[in-house]
Amino acid sequence: MSAGDRHILVIGIGAGDPGHLTLAAVAAMRRADVFFVLDKGSEKDGLIRLRRQLLDQHVGTPYRLVEGEDPERDRSRQSHGPYTDAVRDWRHRRADVCERLISEELAPGECGAFLVWGDPGLYDSTLGILREIRSRGTVTFGYEVVPGISSVSALTAAHGTPLNQVGGPVLLTPGRLLDEGIGSADDVVVMLDAHQRFTGHTDEDLWIYWGAYVGTEDEILVSGPLDRVAGRIVELRAEARARHGWIMDTYLLRRSRPGEEPHEEPGDSTGVPAGGDRR
Amino acid sequence: MSAGDRHILVIGIGAGDPGHLTLAAVAAMRRADVFFVLDKGSEKDGLIRLRRQLLDQHVGTPYRLVEGEDPERDRSRQSHGPYTDAVRDWRHRRADVCERLISEELAPGECGAFLVWGDPGLYDSTLGILREIRSRGTVTFGYEVVPGISSVSALTAAHGTPLNQVGGPVLLTPGRLLDEGIGSADDVVVMLDAHQRFTGHTDEDLWIYWGAYVGTEDEILVSGPLDRVAGRIVELRAEARARHGWIMDTYLLRRSRPGEEPHEEPGDSTGVPAGGDRR
Repeated sequence: MSAGDRHILVIGIGAGDPGHLTLAAVAAMRRADVFFVLDKGSEKDGLIRLRRQLLDQHVGTPYRLVEGEDPERDRSRQSHGPYTDAVRDWRHRRADVCERLISEELAPGECGAFLVWGDPGLYDSTLGILREIRSRGTVTFGYEVVPGISSVSALTAAHGTPLNQVGGPVLLTPGRLLDEGIGSADDVVVMLDAHQRFTGHTDEDLWIYWGAYVGTEDEILVSGPLDRVAGRIVELRAEARARHGWIMDTYLLRRSRPGEEPHEEPGDSTGVPAGGDRR
Repeated sequence: MSAGDRHILVIGIGAGDPGHLTLAAVAAMRRADVFFVLDKGSEKDGLIRLRRQLLDQHVGTPYRLVEGEDPERDRSRQSHGPYTDAVRDWRHRRADVCERLISEELAPGECGAFLVWGDPGLYDSTLGILREIRSRGTVTFGYEVVPGISSVSALTAAHGTPLNQVGGPVLLTPGRLLDEGIGSADDVVVMLDAHQRFTGHTDEDLWIYWGAYVGTEDEILVSGPLDRVAGRIVELRAEARARHGWIMDTYLLRRSRPGEEPHEEPGDSTGVPAGGDRR
């Protein structure tokens, strides 16, 4: 890249625990001239506050943070039209906002940054948006990605369990696809499930490792046989969502294979929430 | 936990880039009284040296590092007997070694640490070994997991590509299972493939993102249409493996879905190795 190019850093900042920030992410934050923020409705205040805390702590100098107005996503199309069309339409409109941010708020030669929860590679739209803007050709920039602790790694670490069983595959899937069955993988991580679709699988012999706000002081963890703890998770999730106004949760469904170790956790394995104390 | 209990930290240290260490991992390293190391044959020297560099840099005080003798794995059984039996047998013997390390080298009340490449939840045996030792009941200890940047996150970040396509699932699988076909997932990450099984899929319309020693100064990246770059990857891999004596590589196979963005990368997309320069 030459000195006059705009440069974008897509920085994974982990899934909520400030300690999950990497040394490379801290260094990248210090390279940025401006930080771009796009957040959704009710999650917005809490998530921007968390980002500001990270910036205040790690970027010694005053920094510039620009908020873009996040377009509303047409959620009615999730159940009617094709899901991916609705997401792409929303992404086009987010790309419009980001294109304007990059061309108006980032001077040639400057470095802008997006702070992305979890890992930028995993179920996050920032990279897709940047690619779309570049393909339009209206503003030129380079970008690089700083990987982050994913919500998947944070979840399994909090539960003290491996993600995979010995020599076995793992499927990462949006909740939406869970209705089609969990397939042949013995371990399935479900992302972005606003509809608690695990409740439709209580007749299968599955173990669930569920976590919300993992790594934050609001963390809730539940694990246990799915048929036994599903109801408890639904209750806890509804309570927490009402209290915070938003929720970030993920879960792993595990089908035990013959000869595999039992579902032991480092602390208790009683299926009750850890309530923020992870030891 | 009470003051007299032994405690084990399983610390993810990222996939090779020293900058991928998290703040929590650094803090955990500083809590440890002793570090346990088990590495395999030819990889051993290089990997222990990298760990020592991290410890020298981040643990200010002199530290104690104890090497366990890693049992040989019976690789002949991979092709003959059931794979998982061979792995479990090897794990039993590793558990024997670790059990001895914990009972002999860790006093009650002390804190021991395993530094694990990548994320401890993903295709690493440490957690399984600790569970097995606990189930034996011969030495009691608590453990906690500090998540790390996985080789999957490091790979996609280095290529500047998302792991998943919009709303799509991702399969993580050991190379061994690739012979059964890549299934219905449009994105498949292959771990631990010593046999370049991607070469058996060049007749499918796939894109490959391959990386070796990702995040280190020896990093090699290749991406492109699988049928076009597979041969080049096989060559590069053999060369690198001969030069270093060992190799850590991972790859993502992607089947493009209709309407998806093109395979653009932040730098070039020519399918030639970046050779350690990732910009």
